[in-house]
Order: sequence, then structure tokens, then C-alpha cells
Amino acid sequence: MKKILLINGPNLQLLGVREPEIYGHTTLKEIVAGLRCAAENAGAVLEDFQSNHEGAIVDRIAAALTDGTDGIMINPAAYTHTSVAIRDALAAVKLPAVEVHLSNITSREDFRSRSLTAPVCRGVIAGFGVQGYHLALTALLVLTAADEN
Amino acid sequence: MKKILLINGPNLQLLGVREPEIYGHTTLKEIVAGLRCAAENAGAVLEDFQSNHEGAIVDRIAAALTDGTDGIMINPAAYTHTSVAIRDALAAVKLPAVEVHLSNITSREDFRSRSLTAPVCRGVIAGFGVQGYHLALTALLVLTAADEN
Amino acid sequence: MKKILLINGPNLQLLGVREPEIYGHTTLKEIVAGLRCAAENAGAVLEDFQSNHEGAIVDRIAAALTDGTDGIMINPAAYTHTSVAIRDALAAVKLPAVEVHLSNITSREDFRSRSLTAPVCRGVIAGFGVQGYHLALTALLVLTAADEN
Amino acid sequence: MKKILLINGPNLQLLGVREPEIYGHTTLKEIVAGLRCAAENAGAVLEDFQSNHEGAIVDRIAAALTDGTDGIMINPAAYTHTSVAIRDALAAVKLPAVEVHLSNITSREDFRSRSLTAPVCRGVIAGFGVQGYHLALTALLVLTAADEN
Amino acid sequence: MKKILLINGPNLQLLGVREPEIYGHTTLKEIVAGLRCAAENAGAVLEDFQSNHEGAIVDRIAAALTDGTDGIMINPAAYTHTSVAIRDALAAVKLPAVEVHLSNITSREDFRSRSLTAPVCRGVIAGFGVQGYHLALTALLVLTAADEN
Amino acid sequence: MKKILLINGPNLQLLGVREPEIYGHTTLKEIVAGLRCAAENAGAVLEDFQSNHEGAIVDRIAAALTDGTDGIMINPAAYTHTSVAIRDALAAVKLPAVEVHLSNITSREDFRSRSLTAPVCRGVIAGFGVQGYHLALTALLVLTAADEN
Amino acid sequence: MKKILLINGPNLQLLGVREPEIYGHTTLKEIVAGLRCAAENAGAVLEDFQSNHEGAIVDRIAAALTDGTDGIMINPAAYTHTSVAIRDALAAVKLPAVEVHLSNITSREDFRSRSLTAPVCRGVIAGFGVQGYHLALTALLVLTAADEN
Amino acid sequence: MKKILLINGPNLQLLGVREPEIYGHTTLKEIVAGLRCAAENAGAVLEDFQSNHEGAIVDRIAAALTDGTDGIMINPAAYTHTSVAIRDALAAVKLPAVEVHLSNITSREDFRSRSLTAPVCRGVIAGFGVQGYHLALTALLVLTAADEN
Amino acid sequence: MKKILLINGPNLQLLGVREPEIYGHTTLKEIVAGLRCAAENAGAVLEDFQSNHEGAIVDRIAAALTDGTDGIMINPAAYTHTSVAIRDALAAVKLPAVEVHLSNITSREDFRSRSLTAPVCRGVIAGFGVQGYHLALTALLVLTAADEN
Amino acid sequence: MKKILLINGPNLQLLGVREPEIYGHTTLKEIVAGLRCAAENAGAVLEDFQSNHEGAIVDRIAAALTDGTDGIMINPAAYTHTSVAIRDALAAVKLPAVEVHLSNITSREDFRSRSLTAPVCRGVIAGFGVQGYHLALTALLVLTAADEN
Amino acid sequence: MKKILLINGPNLQLLGVREPEIYGHTTLKEIVAGLRCAAENAGAVLEDFQSNHEGAIVDRIAAALTDGTDGIMINPAAYTHTSVAIRDALAAVKLPAVEVHLSNITSREDFRSRSLTAPVCRGVIAGFGVQGYHLALTALLVLTAADEN
Amino acid sequence: MKKILLINGPNLQLLGVREPEIYGHTTLKEIVAGLRCAAENAGAVLEDFQSNHEGAIVDRIAAALTDGTDGIMINPAAYTHTSVAIRDALAAVKLPAVEVHLSNITSREDFRSRSLTAPVCRGVIAGFGVQGYHLALTALLVLTAADEN
Repeated sequence: MKKILLINGPNLQLLGVREPEIYGHTTLKEIVAGLRCAAENAGAVLEDFQSNHEGAIVDRIAAALTDGTDGIMINPAAYTHTSVAIRDALAAVKLPAVEVHLSNITSREDFRSRSLTAPVCRGVIAGFGVQGYHLALTALLVLTAADEN
Repeated sequence: MKKILLINGPNLQLLGVREPEIYGHTTLKEIVAGLRCAAENAGAVLEDFQSNHEGAIVDRIAAALTDGTDGIMINPAAYTHTSVAIRDALAAVKLPAVEVHLSNITSREDFRSRSLTAPVCRGVIAGFGVQGYHLALTALLVLTAADEN
Repeated sequence: MKKILLINGPNLQLLGVREPEIYGHTTLKEIVAGLRCAAENAGAVLEDFQSNHEGAIVDRIAAALTDGTDGIMINPAAYTHTSVAIRDALAAVKLPAVEVHLSNITSREDFRSRSLTAPVCRGVIAGFGVQGYHLALTALLVLTAADEN
Repeated sequence: MKKILLINGPNLQLLGVREPEIYGHTTLKEIVAGLRCAAENAGAVLEDFQSNHEGAIVDRIAAALTDGTDGIMINPAAYTHTSVAIRDALAAVKLPAVEVHLSNITSREDFRSRSLTAPVCRGVIAGFGVQGYHLALTALLVLTAADEN
Repeated sequence: MKKILLINGPNLQLLGVREPEIYGHTTLKEIVAGLRCAAENAGAVLEDFQSNHEGAIVDRIAAALTDGTDGIMINPAAYTHTSVAIRDALAAVKLPAVEVHLSNITSREDFRSRSLTAPVCRGVIAGFGVQGYHLALTALLVLTAADEN
Repeated sequence: MKKILLINGPNLQLLGVREPEIYGHTTLKEIVAGLRCAAENAGAVLEDFQSNHEGAIVDRIAAALTDGTDGIMINPAAYTHTSVAIRDALAAVKLPAVEVHLSNITSREDFRSRSLTAPVCRGVIAGFGVQGYHLALTALLVLTAADEN
Repeated sequence: MKKILLINGPNLQLLGVREPEIYGHTTLKEIVAGLRCAAENAGAVLEDFQSNHEGAIVDRIAAALTDGTDGIMINPAAYTHTSVAIRDALAAVKLPAVEVHLSNITSREDFRSRSLTAPVCRGVIAGFGVQGYHLALTALLVLTAADEN
Repeated sequence: MKKILLINGPNLQLLGVREPEIYGHTTLKEIVAGLRCAAENAGAVLEDFQSNHEGAIVDRIAAALTDGTDGIMINPAAYTHTSVAIRDALAAVKLPAVEVHLSNITSREDFRSRSLTAPVCRGVIAGFGVQGYHLALTALLVLTAADEN
Repeated sequence: MKKILLINGPNLQLLGVREPEIYGHTTLKEIVAGLRCAAENAGAVLEDFQSNHEGAIVDRIAAALTDGTDGIMINPAAYTHTSVAIRDALAAVKLPAVEVHLSNITSREDFRSRSLTAPVCRGVIAGFGVQGYHLALTALLVLTAADEN
Repeated sequence: MKKILLINGPNLQLLGVREPEIYGHTTLKEIVAGLRCAAENAGAVLEDFQSNHEGAIVDRIAAALTDGTDGIMINPAAYTHTSVAIRDALAAVKLPAVEVHLSNITSREDFRSRSLTAPVCRGVIAGFGVQGYHLALTALLVLTAADEN
Repeated sequence: MKKILLINGPNLQLLGVREPEIYGHTTLKEIVAGLRCAAENAGAVLEDFQSNHEGAIVDRIAAALTDGTDGIMINPAAYTHTSVAIRDALAAVKLPAVEVHLSNITSREDFRSRSLTAPVCRGVIAGFGVQGYHLALTALLVLTAADEN
Repeated sequence: MKKILLINGPNLQLLGVREPEIYGHTTLKEIVAGLRCAAENAGAVLEDFQSNHEGAIVDRIAAALTDGTDGIMINPAAYTHTSVAIRDALAAVKLPAVEVHLSNITSREDFRSRSLTAPVCRGVIAGFGVQGYHLALTALLVLTAADEN
């Protein structure tokens, strides 16, 4: 049974509250519940983690090295554009990772167009709101299955 | 019944031949067949178009205005980084569009990090090989359904 | 009798449809008819050409070398910002050329502020909608008359 | 009866003297006379103003708020590239404005390629020498008529 | 009674110790006491928070959504220049915020000239040492009063 | 009795008229009256000066050297971003100066993010509308008092 | 017997007409005839292709994959500086390629100093007019012979 | 007896695990033990601290102000390139500091070529793996001895 | 008898007062007197002009066209770096001009390293304080004599 | 009989030793012998010069002014990217020059993409290893013959 | 017995004379003597070379290929920032090299922050004055010993 | 008696030969003779040095430390724009230095607009041909006299 780690970065605990015209009305709790259900249907288990702390996210990724995680689904949010530490952590654990963004970051402020973390992920999905997480889960399960073979 | 237009840009007719270590061994024909099948299963019909000509892609997008297309799935390939014309065409027809890339363009040459077309699409999916098209199809069907309501 | 070549670039065939809040409701056909009439009143003949293909526009400009064209009125649209080939073609035929833009390109996205084609034209007219073509026609007829003397 | 304000920026009082191979031999006085005549023929009145002083041009634009001016035709000359103050003045009075340049500024020194004032004008006309002012007058009369409706 | 949240970023706990020739000799504790007093005189209550942790500051801002805070006074210190996460948190809670800097950041190192957080604040006050906090408090009380009306 | 010089730059004479959604409805005359009153209450006298001319502002600052001015409150408006001359004048007279902006210049056009004058002022206050001038007056009186000791 | 494909990009059909002071008076037809003769003397056969269409050039390069071509000699002209598609096509077919330019592109406009296509060619020859094609043919025949061994 | 504080930044707890082809196989625990031993031999005591949290590192540096630390040896890892807060903390405590990097950061990704923290350290040592820490310890003991005199 | 026009830009009327550690203690009046004397000794006459107004300097340069001026010695001060208008005026009158700076502008702030006016002068002299004007006078007299032959 | 000067820049004396996977195994001595032979066959004489000293190369180029040299073949190696002095020397002697590079410099480090010397040469040949020198010799003999006529 | 080559670049012969507040009072001769002694104690021999000539340094590095040198310790001084030739020489000889700087180059002028030579060295040591050479010697002896195994 | 050292950089030995339309027809020998005479008239002695070698110029400047030189007049020519070594040498000897350029470098290629050496000189004189050396000599004698007092 695959174990998928879902990491959500800063301010995503506010989902459903924060700028809903951009990010939608569903709360993070609801999103996680939906994903957990989807993971189970696919014979996998989802573990979720949210933090506003860059260091805590780095800690959590490092812990994935030894806790049986098979793949990482990460929305680094604001840290996408500023965190070399998260990038290095993802590169260090060498697990398949997928980066997700709720909004289409290419059509927002200029400083959001550079992702420091994307180059060390397998792929990126952006702009599909909550559905993006489900697409990422699907993608990640395929990647972890493929890596197995 | 939804009608989805799949557009593939330059050199993608070479899929399965061109740098398979980056793009995989499946041919474009096989990819399209798989997507057509997936679309049908989802109660949609897929129309595909491939061209190495920027102008022909612009023509095809414009034609979508009047041929009943409900959504566009586009891999602009090399034109991602150089075509204002395709961007303008996508913006003009105002249909929901999803940009797909086989490889993770953020980890390749610098000039591939800028997408001129992504900001006028709803979302972007990159780095998942052929699976990326299937994820995009799923996303697009959700978007077109949501737009309907 | 002067012969004026009118060239319209990509997506301009959509005029009247595409983002009318920016470009107005008149169709390209109507614009051309109005210009043809204005040209005739001024004792000139107007030949028009629209294409979404950069190469086709280059072909058409080159053909102007030998078909008796006296001046070129061109709205390169998206190719304004990306086409060295159209620039080189205009420079090669050495006919007086006027660049027209419907919108004021200086107040839009950053990448629209650079025109590759303007430096090889005699002048530029931007921001006056359809009227801009009429101003350009007037300007071009004066230029071709002046060159004659 | 429309009232059009013509503003000419620094060094344009030297027209006919200064680098005639670029700017032609007609003096500013002659140009203004010709435009005044053209305006009258179109049932409008032209008021002209020339100054080498940025501040005086800002003063004059502000005065247009309350002196019945219907539209502004401005050749900011050197201030095109350096004056945020003139830009702000044009934005503040919210009258339709047209920017005119005698030469094709896109084919001269690099620092002349950026216009600070153009983005707050309705349109720009460059490269047609004295004729450019007449084209601008025509354009401006159409704009002010359209705004009326 | 208005509730004002004062947030101080990294190294500000060292005030009075750290480079006093730039930042003065008053300690943070003394500054907060003075501000608390001033707030009370103005019929408001001040809650203060200092942290060297970007994530903790993000947490604290998010908490302001539900703890009755009426306005935020923030000196993000070093995070001014590097934290998209704090910017996003401030944008998310949509409370009036004022950015304060003890020193005139425009006259120090180049990298201090860009503030990522200022654009989502209502205003910025920099260069007045401890007095700057008092000015910000005054400003914020006016802003929150005005928002009420 | 302290003498404070208030300098307002180009287009600020239009306050109450120009883009009120950004700058508010109070006229400059009213603002100055309010500040004069506030200065008197603080035992100071306010002298005001507005000009659209960069040179006139430079003249006025230089005159402050010998007319008993104790501090300068300046809103250089558009000249903030373009005037080395005003910067040099402020540096030359070596009087304490405070820069004020009605709007939050960090959240407007890119070219407004660089202030040439701020580095030679003691501090900057931006984004608080008319209140900003009162904050600046308070700050300046403290600065001039402190310099005295 | 080696088969060499000669590709000429936009506006090169005008050779002998276009700016002869830069490009010389020989026509493309004459150049091709001379090269064909030289190829035959070297025991090779030359196939030539000219197009103003980026897409057509991409098509032609892809066709070289299966038509027995041993090496490509390409003057991408204007597309040198703008075409990622031609670059990708050359990279995809993995045939030895030589880039030729009639003029010394390093001493012309700045935007001509970047070649997108050169990095995927084996070598570049620029500045020798028609002779450059002959040098490239020589080089290419050596390269294809060496690859054989 | 000198007290040296050793600070290791994010992901360094993974040493021996993370990309050993770049960073070697020794664990952080082993490195610290070796350094502790070397310090003792030199009549000094080593205190070590590792954290993935930028804020925790800032806290720890500030604590060094009052815990008798004589010098700091810091490998800020990923925070080297992004942390103004750590830079400010180092500048604030004004203790001699030495920056160490296991790899030669000048020969890796571009974004690793800028160190925000190095300018406030006395010196930098990079590229010597674990040995680099020993060199830094030696250097730091000399610096602290020199400062004493 | 040669007529030399000396133009001094903004804040130079403060010479002897403003930052004497950079610019020296001699007043502008004294400098002009010394230069007038030197000019007379060389059989020339010096006319001087100082203004803080960019427009007034442009006016004065233009007047030199018809008042018998043989050469211009200009210290544009702050306008060196911002005035296209003065540059255009100097280019328009086509008189030999020499640019003088009291300080070595290459060793001051970055924005002082670009001179907009120097490229249209014959030469530049910077860094020699008052002596620089005398060197410039000597140079200018040689230039005007040479132009005569 | 034509006299051709061959100049090889720094480190080229190591050919056959230095990074043979990039530069091949032939020594410089062997290359020169081959070229000398080729020159003789073409009725020319080859003089060769290699130096690691920028100044020595400048000296040698200047000497070519008076020693009967008809053309220069130069591989400036590392100095290609850093030497304005060699560029000026080549420009000064005004002899036809051809720049040669063994490797395709456009596909190596970024700093190798700018050639300071190429703009003053007639043409450039890069990427063909030792054969490149022979192509350059051929080209140069044609150029010197053409210049003669 | 290891043989270490010490190379010192331009102006380092002035050590003890040149800006001692930055570089200290010890002469180069004294430094070399100290290092020679230290090398001998470590069972190695030190050969030193100083030159102000870039080419001479390139020559010396190349000579190390065949004179039994085991490692290079180099302070390229000013050439650090400008010499591609020294970089290429170090890369060519493929001996372990360590770059040393007396001062902390990251805290000086901007142009000193880029090292062209560091990326081809094993490591860099900067900011420790003369001690830096001793640290480098230690490091280099470890590197050469490790390479042996 | 003052001793002035005149240093001329690369290619200046060609004066009178090299691009005389820019640099004039006088030879370096003649220039030096004229300057020697002028120096003697002013009670000084001139020593001259020309080299195409950056290192030789660095050597010569260093020698000035101990040979009684009172001031340096230097035309670094091409090295102006590329030599940190000459800059460092001038800074090290701390003698008054004047930089001279025959042409107005601000109106030539972009890369000639940056002088690495000027910031460490007292002043710069450019654009006056041979006369510039005489102006520099005058300036230098004043500087050395002033330093004496």
C-alpha cells in the first residue's frame, strides 16, 4: 500500500477564507478529507501536513526519508518563490514529488513566475483549484508505481 | 456531448522518435488514440490537430470559435516560448484551455522557463509525459462542466 | 495610380469578435471595404492581405517587389514583437511602409512595448482603432507622392 | 466648436534650424499656421503652446482643465523619455490626448524607445514629419466627437 | 475599543543592543510600553508580538482574523525583503496594516530597497526611529476609524 | 519658534480634482490650511510652496539655507522618480527633511518604486493621504527639536 | 554517396536583390547551382530547400529523418534569433548540421547576436558571403565522413 | 578557554545521506564529534546547533550575545542565499564569524553564487568537505585570539 | 574675438556652501571672475549663465545660435544624468561644447556614472575642482580656433 | 605570394593535452605543420605565433602592419571574451582577419557566448576542430585575393 | 614528497605596502618564507611564483603539467575577476587547486563578487589574511593525499 | 623638481597610423616630445612608458612607488574597460593620477562607457586628442603642488 505525503505551505490553512475569488471556498480540511478518500479508493494512504514555517516543512520532508513515504505532493505556496531550503530537502530525499498550485501562477505578479522548487519535482500542476490536488494524486500514484517497476 | 480540441505544436509528430530519454517511446498517434478513447469514456469527443506551423495553429484555434469546441488542450511545444500569436488566439476565442508539457520545462534551458501562452490558459500541467495529457483532459472536462453551470 | 498593399497579421480576421472592448465591433471585411473606398477617392488602389502565418506575410511582402506596389500599410499584430523575418522582408523590399496598431500598445503588457518591425517602417500609428488605418493610408499616399518627387 | 490645444516641447522652437535632415525645413510658426487653418476648416479652433520648460508644460496642461479645451495634441520631444510630471498632468486632466513625434523614435537611440507619456495618451503617431501633426489633429477631432456621443 | 496588533520581526528583540548608532538605545520592551500607553490614551488596546521566525509571524497574522484585531502595525525587519509568505498573510486577512522601519531603508544596501510586504500595506513609515511606531499607531487608528464609516 | 517649509511638487495643485479615487477630495489649499493650524498649535510656523517646475523647487530649497527654515516637508510627486537636482538641493542645504506621498507608491507602476530623493531625507511617509502630511509635520518637529539638543 | 540537405530561411530567395551591399549580387539559384556542382565533385548530392515559413522548415528537417539525408547545411536567416522550433527539430533528427550566415552577425544589431539554433549545430560559419556555403559544405562532408568511422 | 559556536543550517542533519557524491558519507554527528575533539585539543570548547528553521538560527545567534560565545562557525546551507535575517543577526552580535560550505558553491547553480551572509563574516571557506570545518575552526581560533590582543 | 558661453546647472549657485569637502570653498561668483579674466587674457570674452531650471538652460543654449557664441562650456550638474532636453539643445546648435564636472563623477553613486549630455559634447573634464573650468576654457579655445581653420 | 599570419591565444600550446574530449588529440605543432603545407599548396606562406600573453598578441598584430602580412587567422581562445586590446589591435591594422574556434562556443558557458573580437573580423568559423583552421585559411585567401581586385 | 606551487597575482608583490588596513603589514617574501617552512614541516616542498602578467601566470600553470607539481595554491588577485585565460589554464592542467584571497571579497566592490577562476578550483578560502595561505596549504595537502588514494 | 610619469596603454604606439579619423595624425613619439618640453617649461621632468602588456603597466606603476614619481598621467586605452589589475596598482601606489583619453569615450561603443580605472584617479579628461595630454599635465602639476601644501 502506497503512502503519499501531502504538504501544504504558508497561509493554505486559510483556504476558504483567503481571497476566495482566487482560491475558492472549500476549506483545507475538506480538501484533505476528499483527497484521503480518493487515495484510499486507489489503494493508498494519505498523510497530510500543513505549516506556515519553512523549517517545519523542511523537517517534514526529511522525516519522509524514514517513515515509508512513497511520494510527495506539495503546494509550497509562498515558499515556492523563496525557499532554497525546501528545494534542497526535496532533492535530498529523492522521492518522487509533484508540485501543485491552486491558481495559475504564470498570470499573477512577476515574482511568482519563478519556482525554486519545481525543478527538483517530477512535474507541476497549476491553475485548477482543488481539482489540481486530485490530478496530482493521480499523477503521483502513477509515478510511484512506475518507479517500482 | 463535449467537444475537446487537442492541439500539438512543432516536432511533436516525432514523439517516440525524438529524444526518447526525455519524451518517452509512445508515438503521437498512440497518444491520440488513448486520449480519444478516454474522452469517449467520459462522454466527450476529441478532435486532434498537430502542426509545425505557428500560423496553422492560430488558424485552428480561431476555427474553434465556430465549430462547437468546448475546450482546448494544447501542447504548444517550442511555440510556448516564442508565440505571441498563439497567445492572442487563445485569448481571443475565450474557450477554457489547458497547457500541457511532456517534460518539466522548469528544469531545462533557461529560455524554456518563460511561457507566453500559459498566462491565457486556465492551468498548466508539466512533467508527466503522456499521462499529462490524460490529466489535462480530466481537468478540462471539469472546467467545461463548471463553466456550463 | 498608386497601389497600396494592406497587410494584416494574426488574429485580425477575428476583428469584431475578439475582445471588442479593446478592438471595437467592426469586422476586418468592413474595414477593408472602407479603406478600399478611401483609396479610390484618393486615386489609389488598395490590395489587401491577411494571414495568421508569419511566412505567408514574408512571402507577400517579397511579392510586392515585382507587382507594382507603391507602399505598404501593415498591422503585424502579434508578429510585431517576435518577427525578425517580417522586419527583414520590409527592409529588403525598401518600399515606404507604415505600421498601424488598433490599440495603444504602449499601455498594454510589457512584451508588447518592443516593436521589431517599427524601426524599418517610415512611421507608426497606434491607438486609434479603425481610424488608424485611414490615417495610415493618408500618410502613406503622401510618402509615396513625396518619394516620387 | 471644439478647442484643441497643441503643445510642443523642448527645442521644437528650433524646427527648420535643428538637424533638418531629420526634422525638415518648415518652422514651427509655419506648422502652427497650417494646423490652425486645418482646424478652422474642420470647425475647430487651435491654441498653441511651446516651451522648453517641463514645469511650464505641466502648468499649461493643468490649465486646460478649466479653459474649455476638448483635446490635446502633444509632442513632448525630449520630455517624452524623462517626464513623469507631464505624464501625471495628462492623466490628471483626463482629456483625450494624442502624442506626435516628427521622427520615427523607434529607429533612433535606445533611450528614445521608451515613452513615459504615451501610455496615458489615446494614441501615438510617429515618423511622418509635419504631416504627423495633421494626422493627429484629424484623429483628435474624431476622438473628441466620439467622446461626446 | 480598537485592538491594534504590533508585530516586530527578526532581531528587533535586540533593540538597544544591536548597532545603536543606527537603531537607537531604547529597548523593544520600552518601545512597547510607550506604545501601549499611547494606545490606551487613544482608547485602544495594543497587543504585541515579536518573533525571529517567519512562520510564527505568518501564524500570528492569520490568528488576527479571528481574535478581534482591528489593524496591524508591522516592522517585518529582514523579512521585508524576502518574505512572500508574510505578504500573502497580510493580503489574506485584509486588515488595515502599516509598515514601519526604524531606519531609512532607501539609503542602505541595495537589497533593502525592495519591500515585498509594503505593496499589501496601506502605508509605510521609515526613518524616524522609535517615533515611527507612534506615527504608525496614529495613522492606523485613523485608518480603522475611517474604515468603520 | 520653528519654521517649517512645506514643498509640494507637480500636479499637486490639482488635489481634489485629479484622480480623487487615489488622492482624495481635499484641495491643496485646505490641506495647507490644516497644516498651518497644526503647526501653530505646536508652536511652529509653516511656509508653503507649490510648483510644477523642478527648477523652482530647487530654487526654493536653496533659499531655505538663508531664510531661517528649520526643516523641510516635501512631496516631490513626479519628481521623486526623476530629479537628481532636487536630491542634490536637499543634500546641499543639509536641513532635516521628510518625504511624504499621498499614495502608497510601492503598489503602483514599477517606475514609481525608485525614489531618487528619499535617500537624502531623514525619513519617508507614504500611503496615508492627507494624514501623511500631519504625521510628517509631527516627525519633523521632533527631528528639529532633537537636532537642537 | 552522401546526401546533403541545404536549407535557406526567410528572405534568402531575394538574394541578389535584397541589400546587395551587405549580401552581394549572386542569386540564390546561382548559389545553389554552384553548391550542387561542388557537392557532385565531392561525390555527394545536394538537395535544396528554401522557405519563408518557420513551420515548413521544421517539416523539412523532420523529413530528413527518413529520406536518407546525411547532413544539414542551414542558413536560418531571421529564424536564427527567434525559432525554438527549428532548434528543436535539428536536435530531434540528430544529424550533423552546420549553420551558415552570409554576413558577420556579431557586428550587426544586438538582437542578431543571439543564435538559438547554433548550440544544436556542430559548428557555425559566418561573414564570408557565398563562399561560406562552400566552406560549410566542405566541413559537413568531413563531419559526415568522420561520423561514419 | 574560548567558546566556539557551530551552527549548521537546513538539511545538514542529512549529511551522509543526502547526495553523498557532493557532500560525502560522514554524518553530522561524526563531524561534530571530530570538531569537538579538535577544539578541545586547541584549548577551546565547541557548542553545536543544527536547525532547519531560519528563525531558530536567528534566535541561537542572538543568544550568543550573552552566553559567553567567542566566535561563530556557520554553514547556513540554503539560507546562505535567501536569509537577510541571519545576516542581520550576525551583524548584530558582532562576534567574529566564519562561513563554511562543504561544496564549492561557485561551481553549482547560479542562485548559489550570491551569499547574503558572507559579507558580514570575517571570511569564507568553501569546497573542502568536512575538512572545511576544521580549517574554519583553526581560522576562528586565530581570529578570536587576535581580537583579544 | 571669441565668445565663450559658460553654463552652470542646478545647485552650482551654492558653490562654496554646499558640501565643500567635495566641491571646495570658492564661490561661483569668484570662479566666474577668474574665468572671465583668463578668457580676456586669451583674447576671448566669457558670458556666464547659471540656472536651476532645465528649461532655462535649454533656452539659453538655443539663444547661443544667434548671439555670436563660438563655444559652450557646460557643467550640467544634476541634469547631466537626467536631461535629454539639454542634450538635444546642444546637438541642435552644433557649437563646440565641453562638459565639466568639479568632482570625479565615476567614483560617486551609480546613477551619476551615466552622462546623457557628454556624447554630444566634444570632450569631458571631471574631477579637478575649479581648475577643471580653466582646463575646459583652454580646450574650448583650441577647438574653436581649429574649427575656424 | 600571400603572407598569412596565424595567431593562437592562451593555452592552445596545450592542444592534444588539454581536455581532448573537447579539443581533440592533435598538437598545435602538428596543426601548424598541416596548415603551412596547405598554405604552400595554395601559393601562400604561413607564419605562426602562439602566446599566452594578451600584450604579446597585441604586439604581434601591430607588427603585421609593416611585415608584409596580407591576412590574419586568429584563435584568441580565452581572450575572445575579455580582450578589448586585441580587438583594437585588429581594428587598427585593418587587415582582413578570420576568427577561428575549435569548439562551438555557442554551446558552452554563458560567458563564452560574447566575442569581443569577432565584430572587427570579417568572419567567424567555430566548432570544426582542426578542420576549422583549414576552412579559415581557404576563406582568408579568397578574401585577400578579393581585396586585391 | 609533495610539490606545491604557490601563485600570486598582480600587485601582491606590494604586500605590506599596499593598503595595509585591508591587507596587513607582512611582506610577500615573509609570507612565502613562512609557507615554505610550513610545507617542509608537512613533508612537502613549496615553489612560489608571483607575476603581474596574466600571460606569465598562464605559462606557469601550464608548466606545472610537466614539472612534478602535485597541487596549486593561487591568489589570482585582480585577475580573479577578469581572466578566462587563467581559468582555462587551471582547467587544462587538471591539478587540484585552491583559490586564496586575503580579504573577504564578498564585502568589497560589486565587480569583485564574481570569480571566474573559483569554479575550476576545488575550493576557496577568503578573508583570513596571511593565515588563509596556511589554511589553503593544509587543505591542498589533504586533497593531494586523497587524490593519491 | 616634479617627476611626472606618463603611461600609454595598448595600441597607442600606433598613433598616427591607427584610425587617424578618430585619433589624429601625430605620432606617439611626437606627442611625448611635446609633453616633455611642456613639462620642462613648467619645471618638471616627464618620464614616458608605453606598453601593450597589462602586466608591464602594472609593473611600471608599482615601480613608481620608489623611483620618486610625483604624479601619473595615464591613458589605459583598451585596458580602461577590462583591467582590475591596473586599477589596483593605481590604488596601491596612492600617487595622484589623471586619466586621459584621446576620443570622447562616452560617444563610442557601449562597452567603452565603463572605466574601471577612472574611479581611482583624481580626474578624467577625454575627447580633446593630443591637447588632452597637455591639459592633464597642467592638472597634474597643480594636484601635486596642492598635495605638497
